[in-house]
Amino acid sequence: MLIARTPGQVREAVAGFARPLGLVPTMGALHAGHLALVRRAREECRTVAASIFVNPLQFGPGEDYDRYPRAFEGDVAALREAGVDLVYAPDAATMYPPGFGAAVDPGPLGERFEGALRPGHFRGVATVCVKLFATVSPDRVYFGAKDAQQVAVLARIIADLNLPVELAVCPTVREPDGLALSSRNVYLDAEQRAAAPSIHRALEVIVAAVRDGETDRERAVARGRAELAPQLREAYLDIVDPATFAAPRDIRPPALAIASAWAGETRLIDNEPIVAVPSGRDEAPVLHDSGRSA
Amino acid sequence: MLIARTPGQVREAVAGFARPLGLVPTMGALHAGHLALVRRAREECRTVAASIFVNPLQFGPGEDYDRYPRAFEGDVAALREAGVDLVYAPDAATMYPPGFGAAVDPGPLGERFEGALRPGHFRGVATVCVKLFATVSPDRVYFGAKDAQQVAVLARIIADLNLPVELAVCPTVREPDGLALSSRNVYLDAEQRAAAPSIHRALEVIVAAVRDGETDRERAVARGRAELAPQLREAYLDIVDPATFAAPRDIRPPALAIASAWAGETRLIDNEPIVAVPSGRDEAPVLHDSGRSA
Repeated sequence: MLIARTPGQVREAVAGFARPLGLVPTMGALHAGHLALVRRAREECRTVAASIFVNPLQFGPGEDYDRYPRAFEGDVAALREAGVDLVYAPDAATMYPPGFGAAVDPGPLGERFEGALRPGHFRGVATVCVKLFATVSPDRVYFGAKDAQQVAVLARIIADLNLPVELAVCPTVREPDGLALSSRNVYLDAEQRAAAPSIHRALEVIVAAVRDGETDRERAVARGRAELAPQLREAYLDIVDPATFAAPRDIRPPALAIASAWAGETRLIDNEPIVAVPSGRDEAPVLHDSGRSA
Repeated sequence: MLIARTPGQVREAVAGFARPLGLVPTMGALHAGHLALVRRAREECRTVAASIFVNPLQFGPGEDYDRYPRAFEGDVAALREAGVDLVYAPDAATMYPPGFGAAVDPGPLGERFEGALRPGHFRGVATVCVKLFATVSPDRVYFGAKDAQQVAVLARIIADLNLPVELAVCPTVREPDGLALSSRNVYLDAEQRAAAPSIHRALEVIVAAVRDGETDRERAVARGRAELAPQLREAYLDIVDPATFAAPRDIRPPALAIASAWAGETRLIDNEPIVAVPSGRDEAPVLHDSGRSA
Protein backbone atom coordinates (compact mmCIF):
# COMPACT_ATOMS: atom_id res chain seq x y z
CA MET A 1 0.00 0.00 0.00
CA LEU A 2 1.34 3.39 -1.04
CA ILE A 3 0.94 6.52 1.06
CA ALA A 4 0.92 9.73 -0.98
CA ARG A 5 1.24 13.19 0.53
CA THR A 6 0.96 15.38 -2.57
CA PRO A 7 -1.15 15.51 -5.74
CA GLY A 8 1.97 14.74 -7.77
CA GLN A 9 2.62 11.54 -5.83
CA VAL A 10 -1.02 10.53 -6.28
CA ARG A 11 -0.95 11.13 -10.03
CA GLU A 12 2.29 9.18 -10.42
CA ALA A 13 0.80 6.21 -8.56
CA VAL A 14 -2.57 6.37 -10.31
CA ALA A 15 -0.95 6.40 -13.76
CA GLY A 16 0.07 2.80 -13.19
CA PHE A 17 -3.17 1.57 -11.61
CA ALA A 18 -5.65 -0.84 -13.18
CA ARG A 19 -9.15 0.48 -13.80
CA PRO A 20 -11.78 0.82 -12.54
CA LEU A 21 -10.34 2.81 -9.64
CA GLY A 22 -12.51 3.34 -6.56
CA LEU A 23 -11.98 6.17 -4.06
CA VAL A 24 -13.19 6.24 -0.46
CA PRO A 25 -12.77 9.81 0.87
CA THR A 26 -12.58 9.97 4.67
CA MET A 27 -11.62 12.30 7.49
CA GLY A 28 -9.88 9.37 9.23
CA ALA A 29 -10.91 8.09 12.69
CA LEU A 30 -12.17 5.11 10.75
CA HIS A 31 -14.98 2.89 11.99
CA ALA A 32 -16.82 -0.11 10.58
CA GLY A 33 -18.89 2.17 8.34
CA HIS A 34 -15.79 3.41 6.53
CA LEU A 35 -14.48 -0.14 6.24
CA ALA A 36 -17.78 -1.24 4.69
CA LEU A 37 -17.19 1.43 2.01
CA VAL A 38 -13.70 0.06 1.40
CA ARG A 39 -15.03 -3.50 1.24
CA ARG A 40 -17.60 -2.56 -1.37
CA ALA A 41 -14.98 -0.64 -3.38
CA ARG A 42 -12.70 -3.67 -3.16
CA GLU A 43 -15.49 -5.88 -4.56
CA GLU A 44 -16.29 -3.55 -7.45
CA CYS A 45 -12.94 -2.04 -8.47
CA ARG A 46 -9.56 -3.36 -9.56
CA THR A 47 -7.78 -0.65 -7.57
CA VAL A 48 -8.92 1.09 -4.38
CA ALA A 49 -7.71 4.42 -3.03
CA ALA A 50 -8.74 6.06 0.23
CA SER A 51 -8.07 9.58 1.41
CA ILE A 52 -7.56 10.74 4.98
CA PHE A 53 -7.94 14.49 5.41
CA VAL A 54 -9.66 16.39 8.19
CA ASN A 55 -10.90 19.23 6.02
CA PRO A 56 -10.81 22.57 7.85
CA LEU A 57 -13.08 24.18 5.20
CA GLN A 58 -16.05 22.08 6.25
CA PHE A 59 -15.83 23.02 9.93
CA GLY A 60 -17.36 26.30 11.06
CA PRO A 61 -15.95 28.62 13.73
CA GLY A 62 -16.48 27.04 17.16
CA GLU A 63 -16.92 23.57 15.71
CA ASP A 64 -14.79 20.55 16.59
CA TYR A 65 -12.02 20.83 13.97
CA ASP A 66 -9.24 20.95 16.57
CA ARG A 67 -10.60 18.12 18.70
CA TYR A 68 -11.96 16.00 15.81
CA PRO A 69 -10.57 12.49 16.47
CA ARG A 70 -7.31 11.73 14.64
CA ALA A 71 -5.88 8.22 14.56
CA PHE A 72 -3.57 8.11 11.56
CA GLU A 73 -1.46 5.05 12.39
CA GLY A 74 -4.47 2.91 13.25
CA ASP A 75 -6.35 4.17 10.17
CA VAL A 76 -3.45 3.27 7.89
CA ALA A 77 -3.21 -0.20 9.42
CA ALA A 78 -6.95 -0.77 8.97
CA LEU A 79 -6.83 0.38 5.33
CA ARG A 80 -3.85 -1.85 4.59
CA GLU A 81 -5.65 -4.78 6.20
CA ALA A 82 -8.74 -3.98 4.08
CA GLY A 83 -6.71 -4.21 0.89
CA VAL A 84 -6.45 -0.54 -0.04
CA ASP A 85 -3.80 0.18 -2.70
CA LEU A 86 -3.20 3.89 -2.12
CA VAL A 87 -3.82 6.26 0.79
CA TYR A 88 -3.78 9.97 0.01
CA ALA A 89 -3.13 11.91 3.18
CA PRO A 90 -2.16 15.50 2.39
CA ASP A 91 -1.63 18.14 5.05
CA ALA A 92 -3.76 21.30 5.15
CA ALA A 93 -1.02 23.45 3.57
CA THR A 94 -0.82 21.09 0.59
CA MET A 95 -4.58 21.12 0.14
CA TYR A 96 -4.94 24.89 0.70
CA PRO A 97 -1.65 26.64 -0.09
CA PRO A 98 -1.19 30.41 0.31
CA GLY A 99 -3.32 32.31 -2.21
CA PHE A 100 -5.94 29.55 -2.38
CA GLY A 101 -9.24 31.25 -3.20
CA ALA A 102 -11.59 29.06 -5.23
CA ALA A 103 -14.62 27.23 -3.91
CA VAL A 104 -17.35 24.96 -5.19
CA ASP A 105 -20.81 26.01 -4.09
CA PRO A 106 -23.54 23.35 -4.24
CA GLY A 107 -26.34 25.93 -4.38
CA PRO A 108 -29.60 26.07 -2.37
CA LEU A 109 -29.43 22.39 -1.34
CA GLY A 110 -26.31 23.27 0.61
CA GLU A 111 -28.10 25.93 2.67
CA ARG A 112 -30.76 23.63 4.16
CA PHE A 113 -30.66 21.58 7.43
CA GLU A 114 -26.97 20.75 7.94
CA GLY A 115 -26.08 23.75 5.81
CA ALA A 116 -28.21 26.05 7.96
CA LEU A 117 -26.64 24.69 11.16
CA ARG A 118 -23.12 24.74 9.68
CA PRO A 119 -22.79 27.75 7.33
CA GLY A 120 -20.19 27.01 4.66
CA HIS A 121 -20.07 23.30 5.52
CA PHE A 122 -21.22 21.95 2.18
CA ARG A 123 -19.16 24.49 0.29
CA GLY A 124 -16.18 23.01 2.14
CA VAL A 125 -17.32 19.46 1.39
CA ALA A 126 -17.93 20.20 -2.29
CA THR A 127 -14.61 22.01 -2.67
CA VAL A 128 -12.50 19.29 -1.08
CA CYS A 129 -14.33 16.55 -2.97
CA VAL A 130 -13.84 18.22 -6.35
CA LYS A 131 -10.14 18.57 -5.47
CA LEU A 132 -9.89 14.93 -4.39
CA PHE A 133 -11.72 13.70 -7.48
CA ALA A 134 -9.55 15.83 -9.78
CA THR A 135 -6.38 14.61 -8.05
CA VAL A 136 -7.17 10.89 -7.82
CA SER A 137 -9.36 10.63 -10.99
CA PRO A 138 -11.46 7.75 -9.62
CA ASP A 139 -14.07 5.99 -11.73
CA ARG A 140 -16.29 5.57 -8.69
CA VAL A 141 -16.47 7.25 -5.28
CA TYR A 142 -17.96 5.69 -2.16
CA PHE A 143 -19.92 7.53 0.53
CA GLY A 144 -22.11 6.41 3.42
CA ALA A 145 -25.88 6.89 3.46
CA LYS A 146 -25.66 8.22 7.04
CA ASP A 147 -24.60 11.60 5.68
CA ALA A 148 -27.64 11.85 3.41
CA GLN A 149 -27.37 15.55 2.67
CA GLN A 150 -23.68 15.16 1.85
CA VAL A 151 -24.69 12.42 -0.60
CA ALA A 152 -27.27 14.76 -2.15
CA VAL A 153 -24.66 17.55 -2.43
CA LEU A 154 -22.21 15.20 -4.11
CA ALA A 155 -24.85 13.93 -6.55
CA ARG A 156 -25.66 17.59 -7.31
CA ILE A 157 -22.07 18.68 -8.01
CA ILE A 158 -21.21 15.53 -9.97
CA ALA A 159 -24.22 16.10 -12.21
CA ASP A 160 -23.95 19.90 -12.42
CA LEU A 161 -20.19 20.01 -13.08
CA ASN A 162 -20.22 16.94 -15.39
CA LEU A 163 -17.62 15.25 -13.21
CA PRO A 164 -16.64 11.93 -14.84
CA VAL A 165 -17.23 9.83 -11.72
CA GLU A 166 -19.95 7.52 -10.45
CA LEU A 167 -21.35 7.97 -6.94
CA ALA A 168 -21.85 4.79 -4.90
CA VAL A 169 -23.84 5.11 -1.67
CA CYS A 170 -23.50 2.39 0.96
CA PRO A 171 -26.00 1.61 3.72
CA THR A 172 -25.50 3.12 7.16
CA VAL A 173 -23.71 0.75 9.56
CA ARG A 174 -25.28 0.68 13.04
CA GLU A 175 -24.56 -0.50 16.55
CA PRO A 176 -26.81 -3.38 17.67
CA ASP A 177 -29.11 -0.84 19.40
CA GLY A 178 -29.55 1.12 16.17
CA LEU A 179 -27.14 4.02 16.75
CA ALA A 180 -25.51 4.99 13.44
CA LEU A 181 -21.73 4.66 13.53
CA SER A 182 -19.96 8.00 13.56
CA SER A 183 -16.45 9.12 14.39
CA ARG A 184 -18.14 11.56 16.80
CA ASN A 185 -19.69 8.78 18.90
CA VAL A 186 -16.44 8.70 20.90
CA TYR A 187 -17.46 12.07 22.37
CA LEU A 188 -20.52 10.56 24.12
CA ASP A 189 -20.51 9.82 27.84
CA ALA A 190 -22.42 6.80 29.19
CA GLU A 191 -25.71 8.61 29.68
CA GLN A 192 -25.55 10.27 26.25
CA ARG A 193 -24.63 6.94 24.66
CA ALA A 194 -27.67 5.33 26.29
CA ALA A 195 -29.95 8.10 24.99
CA ALA A 196 -28.48 8.28 21.47
CA PRO A 197 -30.32 5.26 19.92
CA SER A 198 -33.60 7.13 20.42
CA ILE A 199 -32.65 9.18 17.34
CA HIS A 200 -32.94 6.11 15.17
CA ARG A 201 -36.10 4.95 17.00
CA ALA A 202 -37.67 8.36 16.26
CA LEU A 203 -36.93 7.83 12.56
CA GLU A 204 -38.44 4.34 12.66
CA VAL A 205 -41.58 5.75 14.26
CA ILE A 206 -41.88 8.32 11.47
CA VAL A 207 -41.38 5.66 8.79
CA ALA A 208 -44.01 3.47 10.45
CA ALA A 209 -46.47 6.35 10.81
CA VAL A 210 -46.26 7.04 7.07
CA ARG A 211 -46.51 3.35 6.25
CA ASP A 212 -49.63 3.20 8.43
CA GLY A 213 -51.31 5.98 6.51
CA GLU A 214 -50.14 9.31 7.87
CA THR A 215 -49.85 11.76 4.94
CA ASP A 216 -49.21 15.01 6.80
CA ARG A 217 -45.52 15.72 7.28
CA GLU A 218 -45.82 17.62 10.53
CA ARG A 219 -48.06 15.03 12.18
CA ALA A 220 -45.73 12.21 11.15
CA VAL A 221 -42.72 14.12 12.46
CA ALA A 222 -44.49 14.84 15.77
CA ARG A 223 -44.97 11.10 16.28
CA GLY A 224 -41.25 10.58 15.95
CA ARG A 225 -40.39 13.54 18.16
CA ALA A 226 -42.18 11.88 21.10
CA GLU A 227 -39.66 9.04 20.87
CA LEU A 228 -36.53 11.21 21.33
CA ALA A 229 -34.91 10.68 24.75
CA PRO A 230 -35.22 13.69 27.06
CA GLN A 231 -31.42 13.74 27.46
CA LEU A 232 -31.19 14.83 23.80
CA ARG A 233 -32.03 18.19 22.28
CA GLU A 234 -33.53 18.09 18.81
CA ALA A 235 -31.69 20.04 16.10
CA TYR A 236 -34.12 18.96 13.38
CA LEU A 237 -36.49 16.14 12.60
CA ASP A 238 -38.23 16.19 9.23
CA ILE A 239 -39.27 14.45 6.05
CA VAL A 240 -37.56 15.71 2.91
CA ASP A 241 -37.00 15.04 -0.75
CA PRO A 242 -33.67 13.16 -0.63
CA ALA A 243 -32.31 14.96 -3.70
CA THR A 244 -33.21 18.56 -2.81
CA PHE A 245 -33.85 18.42 0.96
CA ALA A 246 -36.97 20.48 0.36
CA ALA A 247 -39.75 19.57 2.80
CA PRO A 248 -43.22 19.80 1.25
CA ARG A 249 -46.18 19.62 3.65
CA ASP A 250 -47.63 16.49 2.06
CA ILE A 251 -45.36 13.51 2.01
CA ARG A 252 -44.49 12.52 -1.55
CA PRO A 253 -42.13 9.81 -2.75
CA PRO A 254 -39.21 9.72 -2.83
CA ALA A 255 -39.02 10.81 0.80
CA LEU A 256 -36.45 10.56 3.52
CA ALA A 257 -36.89 10.98 7.28
CA ILE A 258 -33.95 12.93 8.68
CA ALA A 259 -32.94 13.61 12.27
CA SER A 260 -30.32 15.50 14.20
CA ALA A 261 -30.02 15.91 17.94
CA TRP A 262 -27.56 17.28 20.43
CA ALA A 263 -26.17 15.03 23.15
CA GLY A 264 -24.38 17.64 25.25
CA GLU A 265 -21.84 19.30 22.95
CA THR A 266 -22.08 16.55 20.36
CA ARG A 267 -24.55 16.69 17.52
CA LEU A 268 -25.53 13.40 15.91
CA ILE A 269 -27.35 12.81 12.62
CA ASP A 270 -29.25 9.94 11.08
CA ASN A 271 -31.86 9.20 8.42
CA GLU A 272 -34.21 6.49 7.19
CA PRO A 273 -35.89 6.23 3.79
CA ILE A 274 -39.68 6.31 3.73
CA VAL A 275 -40.18 2.94 2.08
CA ALA A 276 -43.87 3.19 1.35
CA VAL A 277 -46.33 6.03 0.95
CA PRO A 278 -50.04 5.32 1.66
CA SER A 279 -51.92 3.97 -1.32
CA GLY A 280 -54.38 6.29 -3.01
CA ARG A 281 -51.77 9.06 -3.03
CA ASP A 282 -49.63 7.18 -5.49
CA GLU A 283 -50.39 4.16 -7.55
CA ALA A 284 -47.93 1.90 -5.83
CA PRO A 285 -45.64 1.98 -2.83
CA VAL A 286 -42.24 3.30 -3.81
CA LEU A 287 -39.27 1.36 -2.56
CA HIS A 288 -35.91 2.99 -2.07
CA ASP A 289 -32.55 1.46 -1.69
CA SER A 290 -29.64 3.12 -0.03
CA GLY A 291 -28.54 4.58 -3.36
CA ARG A 292 -31.62 6.78 -3.48
CA SER A 293 -29.70 10.05 -3.78
CA ALA A 294 -27.20 8.95 -6.36
CA MET B 1 -14.89 17.04 -37.94
CA LEU B 2 -17.47 15.83 -35.41
CA ILE B 3 -20.11 18.10 -33.91
CA ALA B 4 -21.27 16.97 -30.45
CA ARG B 5 -24.33 18.37 -28.71
CA THR B 6 -24.23 16.48 -25.40
CA PRO B 7 -21.59 15.44 -22.83
CA GLY B 8 -22.22 11.80 -23.76
CA GLN B 9 -21.44 12.45 -27.43
CA VAL B 10 -18.27 14.29 -26.42
CA ARG B 11 -17.08 11.48 -24.15
CA GLU B 12 -17.73 8.86 -26.81
CA ALA B 13 -15.70 10.84 -29.34
CA VAL B 14 -12.88 11.69 -26.93
CA ALA B 15 -12.46 8.03 -25.89
CA GLY B 16 -11.06 7.35 -29.36
CA PHE B 17 -8.88 10.46 -29.66
CA ALA B 18 -5.10 10.53 -29.67
CA ARG B 19 -3.44 12.48 -26.88
CA PRO B 20 -2.51 15.16 -26.12
CA LEU B 21 -5.94 16.70 -26.63
CA GLY B 22 -6.20 20.50 -26.81
CA LEU B 23 -9.42 22.41 -26.12
CA VAL B 24 -10.24 25.93 -27.32
CA PRO B 25 -13.35 27.14 -25.44
CA THR B 26 -15.20 29.92 -27.27
CA MET B 27 -18.51 31.74 -27.32
CA GLY B 28 -18.51 31.58 -31.11
CA ALA B 29 -18.51 34.68 -33.33
CA LEU B 30 -14.97 33.64 -34.12
CA HIS B 31 -12.29 36.08 -35.20
CA ALA B 32 -8.59 35.79 -36.01
CA GLY B 33 -7.78 35.71 -32.29
CA HIS B 34 -9.77 32.52 -31.78
CA LEU B 35 -8.22 31.01 -34.89
CA ALA B 36 -4.74 31.78 -33.56
CA LEU B 37 -5.67 29.73 -30.47
CA VAL B 38 -6.77 26.85 -32.70
CA ARG B 39 -3.58 27.12 -34.74
CA ARG B 40 -1.40 26.91 -31.64
CA ALA B 41 -3.45 23.96 -30.33
CA ARG B 42 -3.06 22.27 -33.72
CA GLU B 43 0.73 22.72 -33.51
CA GLU B 44 0.99 21.33 -29.98
CA CYS B 45 -1.68 18.61 -29.77
CA ARG B 46 -2.54 15.45 -31.68
CA THR B 47 -6.25 16.19 -31.37
CA VAL B 48 -8.00 19.56 -31.13
CA ALA B 49 -11.49 20.24 -29.78
CA ALA B 50 -13.27 23.59 -29.71
CA SER B 51 -16.45 24.51 -27.89
CA ILE B 52 -19.05 27.04 -28.98
CA PHE B 53 -21.37 28.10 -26.19
CA VAL B 54 -22.69 31.56 -25.38
CA ASN B 55 -22.77 31.07 -21.62
CA PRO B 56 -25.76 32.82 -20.03
CA LEU B 57 -24.20 32.49 -16.53
CA GLN B 58 -21.42 34.91 -17.38
CA PHE B 59 -23.72 37.68 -18.56
CA GLY B 60 -25.33 39.93 -15.98
CA PRO B 61 -28.87 41.36 -16.15
CA GLY B 62 -28.97 44.09 -18.78
CA GLU B 63 -25.84 42.81 -20.52
CA ASP B 64 -25.66 41.73 -24.15
CA TYR B 65 -26.49 38.01 -23.84
CA ASP B 66 -29.44 38.22 -26.22
CA ARG B 67 -27.69 40.33 -28.83
CA TYR B 68 -24.24 38.74 -28.44
CA PRO B 69 -23.17 37.90 -32.01
CA ARG B 70 -23.97 34.33 -33.08
CA ALA B 71 -22.61 32.90 -36.33
CA PHE B 72 -22.73 29.14 -35.91
CA GLU B 73 -22.47 28.04 -39.55
CA GLY B 74 -19.56 30.32 -40.31
CA ASP B 75 -17.84 29.36 -37.05
CA VAL B 76 -18.14 25.66 -37.84
CA ALA B 77 -16.74 26.21 -41.34
CA ALA B 78 -13.80 28.18 -39.93
CA LEU B 79 -13.05 25.50 -37.32
CA ARG B 80 -13.21 22.74 -39.94
CA GLU B 81 -10.88 24.75 -42.18
CA ALA B 82 -8.51 25.20 -39.21
CA GLY B 83 -8.29 21.44 -38.68
CA VAL B 84 -10.40 21.05 -35.54
CA ASP B 85 -11.41 17.43 -34.84
CA LEU B 86 -14.42 17.99 -32.57
CA VAL B 87 -16.77 20.90 -31.94
CA TYR B 88 -18.83 20.76 -28.74
CA ALA B 89 -21.87 23.01 -29.11
CA PRO B 90 -24.43 22.27 -26.40
CA ASP B 91 -27.59 24.29 -25.94
CA ALA B 92 -28.29 26.12 -22.69
CA ALA B 93 -30.73 23.46 -21.44
CA THR B 94 -28.08 20.76 -21.86
CA MET B 95 -25.51 22.83 -20.02
CA TYR B 96 -27.92 23.97 -17.28
CA PRO B 97 -30.81 21.50 -16.97
CA PRO B 98 -33.68 22.02 -14.49
CA GLY B 99 -32.44 21.70 -10.90
CA PHE B 100 -28.94 22.88 -11.79
CA GLY B 101 -27.56 24.59 -8.69
CA ALA B 102 -23.79 24.25 -8.35
CA ALA B 103 -21.24 26.95 -9.08
CA VAL B 104 -17.50 27.43 -9.01
CA ASP B 105 -16.43 30.61 -7.26
CA PRO B 106 -12.93 31.89 -8.05
CA GLY B 107 -12.73 33.92 -4.81
CA PRO B 108 -11.59 37.53 -4.30
CA LEU B 109 -9.79 37.72 -7.67
CA GLY B 110 -13.19 37.33 -9.30
CA GLU B 111 -14.60 40.40 -7.53
CA ARG B 112 -12.09 42.92 -8.86
CA PHE B 113 -12.23 45.05 -12.06
CA GLU B 114 -14.29 42.98 -14.55
CA GLY B 115 -15.86 41.19 -11.59
CA ALA B 116 -16.88 44.47 -9.98
CA LEU B 117 -18.39 45.72 -13.25
CA ARG B 118 -20.04 42.36 -13.99
CA PRO B 119 -21.17 40.75 -10.71
CA GLY B 120 -21.21 36.97 -11.07
CA HIS B 121 -19.30 37.08 -14.37
CA PHE B 122 -16.26 35.11 -13.26
CA ARG B 123 -18.40 32.68 -11.27
CA GLY B 124 -20.13 31.98 -14.57
CA VAL B 125 -16.83 31.69 -16.43
CA ALA B 126 -15.33 29.38 -13.78
CA THR B 127 -18.44 27.20 -13.65
CA VAL B 128 -18.74 26.70 -17.39
CA CYS B 129 -15.01 26.09 -17.78
CA VAL B 130 -14.94 23.44 -15.03
CA LYS B 131 -17.90 21.78 -16.80
CA LEU B 132 -16.21 21.97 -20.20
CA PHE B 133 -12.92 20.64 -18.85
CA ALA B 134 -14.70 17.78 -17.02
CA THR B 135 -16.68 16.90 -20.15
CA VAL B 136 -13.90 17.10 -22.74
CA SER B 137 -10.97 16.07 -20.44
CA PRO B 138 -8.39 18.06 -22.41
CA ASP B 139 -4.70 17.90 -21.58
CA ARG B 140 -4.30 21.57 -22.47
CA VAL B 141 -6.72 24.48 -22.79
CA TYR B 142 -6.11 27.62 -24.86
CA PHE B 143 -7.17 31.14 -23.94
CA GLY B 144 -6.30 34.57 -25.26
CA ALA B 145 -4.22 37.07 -23.30
CA LYS B 146 -6.74 39.82 -24.15
CA ASP B 147 -9.00 38.55 -21.36
CA ALA B 148 -6.24 38.82 -18.78
CA GLN B 149 -8.44 38.57 -15.71
CA GLN B 150 -10.20 35.54 -17.18
CA VAL B 151 -6.77 33.97 -17.63
CA ALA B 152 -5.94 34.74 -13.99
CA VAL B 153 -9.27 33.24 -12.86
CA LEU B 154 -8.62 30.08 -14.85
CA ALA B 155 -5.09 29.76 -13.49
CA ARG B 156 -6.57 30.17 -9.99
CA ILE B 157 -9.26 27.50 -10.35
CA ILE B 158 -6.96 25.05 -12.15
CA ALA B 159 -4.43 25.34 -9.33
CA ASP B 160 -6.94 25.49 -6.46
CA LEU B 161 -9.13 22.62 -7.65
CA ASN B 162 -6.16 20.49 -8.84
CA LEU B 163 -7.68 20.26 -12.30
CA PRO B 164 -5.49 17.97 -14.45
CA VAL B 165 -5.12 20.42 -17.32
CA GLU B 166 -2.47 22.82 -18.55
CA LEU B 167 -3.36 26.44 -19.32
CA ALA B 168 -1.88 27.88 -22.53
CA VAL B 169 -2.18 31.64 -23.01
CA CYS B 170 -1.79 33.07 -26.51
CA PRO B 171 -0.88 36.66 -27.40
CA THR B 172 -3.65 39.15 -28.16
CA VAL B 173 -4.31 39.52 -31.88
CA ARG B 174 -4.74 43.14 -32.99
CA GLU B 175 -5.96 45.19 -35.89
CA PRO B 176 -3.16 47.11 -37.68
CA ASP B 177 -4.05 50.21 -35.62
CA GLY B 178 -3.62 48.30 -32.35
CA LEU B 179 -7.26 47.59 -31.47
CA ALA B 180 -7.52 44.17 -29.81
CA LEU B 181 -9.75 41.77 -31.73
CA SER B 182 -13.04 41.11 -29.95
CA SER B 183 -16.36 39.64 -31.01
CA ARG B 184 -17.87 42.86 -29.62
CA ASN B 185 -15.99 45.08 -32.10
CA VAL B 186 -18.88 44.51 -34.54
CA TYR B 187 -21.00 46.71 -32.27
CA LEU B 188 -18.82 49.79 -32.96
CA ASP B 189 -19.96 52.52 -35.36
CA ALA B 190 -17.40 54.35 -37.49
CA GLU B 191 -16.66 57.07 -34.95
CA GLN B 192 -16.36 54.58 -32.08
CA ARG B 193 -14.13 52.37 -34.21
CA ALA B 194 -11.84 55.32 -34.92
CA ALA B 195 -11.60 56.16 -31.20
CA ALA B 196 -11.15 52.57 -29.98
CA PRO B 197 -7.39 52.17 -30.73
CA SER B 198 -6.69 54.89 -28.14
CA ILE B 199 -7.27 52.20 -25.48
CA HIS B 200 -4.19 50.36 -26.62
CA ARG B 201 -2.24 53.59 -27.02
CA ALA B 202 -3.09 54.49 -23.41
CA LEU B 203 -1.65 51.14 -22.32
CA GLU B 204 1.49 51.72 -24.37
CA VAL B 205 1.93 55.12 -22.73
CA ILE B 206 1.67 53.53 -19.28
CA VAL B 207 4.21 50.84 -20.21
CA ALA B 208 6.56 53.49 -21.56
CA ALA B 209 6.13 55.69 -18.48
CA VAL B 210 7.17 52.83 -16.22
CA ARG B 211 10.05 51.89 -18.50
CA ASP B 212 11.21 55.50 -18.35
CA GLY B 213 11.33 55.46 -14.55
CA GLU B 214 7.86 56.18 -13.20
CA THR B 215 7.37 54.11 -10.06
CA ASP B 216 4.08 55.53 -8.79
CA ARG B 217 1.07 53.63 -10.06
CA GLU B 218 -1.34 56.53 -10.09
CA ARG B 219 1.03 58.87 -11.91
CA ALA B 220 1.80 56.23 -14.54
CA VAL B 221 -1.92 55.56 -15.02
CA ALA B 222 -2.66 59.29 -15.34
CA ARG B 223 -0.17 59.50 -18.21
CA GLY B 224 -2.09 56.78 -20.05
CA ARG B 225 -5.46 58.34 -19.25
CA ALA B 226 -4.52 61.47 -21.17
CA GLU B 227 -4.23 59.32 -24.29
CA LEU B 228 -7.81 57.98 -24.24
CA ALA B 229 -9.96 59.46 -27.01
CA PRO B 230 -12.69 61.82 -25.73
CA GLN B 231 -15.34 59.68 -27.51
CA LEU B 232 -14.60 56.91 -24.99
CA ARG B 233 -15.55 56.75 -21.33
CA GLU B 234 -13.02 55.04 -19.05
CA ALA B 235 -14.31 52.07 -17.05
CA TYR B 236 -10.91 51.42 -15.48
CA LEU B 237 -7.25 51.99 -16.22
CA ASP B 238 -4.74 50.55 -13.80
CA ILE B 239 -1.59 48.57 -13.10
CA VAL B 240 -2.15 45.27 -11.33
CA ASP B 241 -0.50 42.05 -10.30
CA PRO B 242 -1.48 39.75 -13.20
CA ALA B 243 -2.18 36.79 -10.90
CA THR B 244 -4.29 38.52 -8.23
CA PHE B 245 -5.40 41.77 -9.91
CA ALA B 246 -4.47 43.56 -6.71
CA ALA B 247 -3.17 47.08 -7.41
CA PRO B 248 -0.43 48.13 -5.00
CA ARG B 249 0.56 51.83 -5.04
CA ASP B 250 4.16 51.12 -5.99
CA ILE B 251 4.64 49.25 -9.22
CA ARG B 252 6.24 45.86 -8.57
CA PRO B 253 6.96 43.10 -11.04
CA PRO B 254 5.19 41.16 -12.35
CA ALA B 255 2.84 43.94 -13.39
CA LEU B 256 0.18 44.34 -16.02
CA ALA B 257 -1.41 47.53 -17.35
CA ILE B 258 -5.15 46.98 -17.83
CA ALA B 259 -7.75 49.14 -19.52
CA SER B 260 -11.45 49.18 -20.15
CA ALA B 261 -13.52 51.87 -21.81
CA TRP B 262 -17.04 52.37 -23.05
CA ALA B 263 -17.66 53.24 -26.68
CA GLY B 264 -21.35 54.02 -26.51
CA GLU B 265 -23.06 50.89 -25.19
CA THR B 266 -20.05 48.71 -25.90
CA ARG B 267 -17.33 48.17 -23.34
CA LEU B 268 -13.92 47.15 -24.63
CA ILE B 269 -10.97 45.73 -22.68
CA ASP B 270 -7.27 45.39 -23.29
CA ASN B 271 -3.99 44.96 -21.43
CA GLU B 272 -0.23 45.16 -21.86
CA PRO B 273 2.45 43.61 -19.68
CA ILE B 274 4.87 45.98 -17.97
CA VAL B 275 8.04 44.61 -19.46
CA ALA B 276 10.56 46.42 -17.32
CA VAL B 277 10.46 48.08 -13.92
CA PRO B 278 12.98 50.88 -13.20
CA SER B 279 16.29 49.62 -11.88
CA GLY B 280 17.07 50.28 -8.24
CA ARG B 281 13.63 48.98 -7.27
CA ASP B 282 14.52 45.47 -8.37
CA GLU B 283 17.81 43.95 -9.27
CA ALA B 284 16.96 43.41 -12.90
CA PRO B 285 14.20 44.21 -15.34
CA VAL B 286 11.63 41.45 -15.38
CA LEU B 287 10.51 40.27 -18.77
CA HIS B 288 7.12 38.72 -19.27
CA ASP B 289 5.81 36.68 -22.09
CA SER B 290 2.18 36.36 -22.93
CA GLY B 291 1.92 33.28 -20.70
CA ARG B 292 2.52 35.41 -17.61
CA SER B 293 -0.62 34.38 -15.79
CA ALA B 294 -0.43 30.66 -16.46
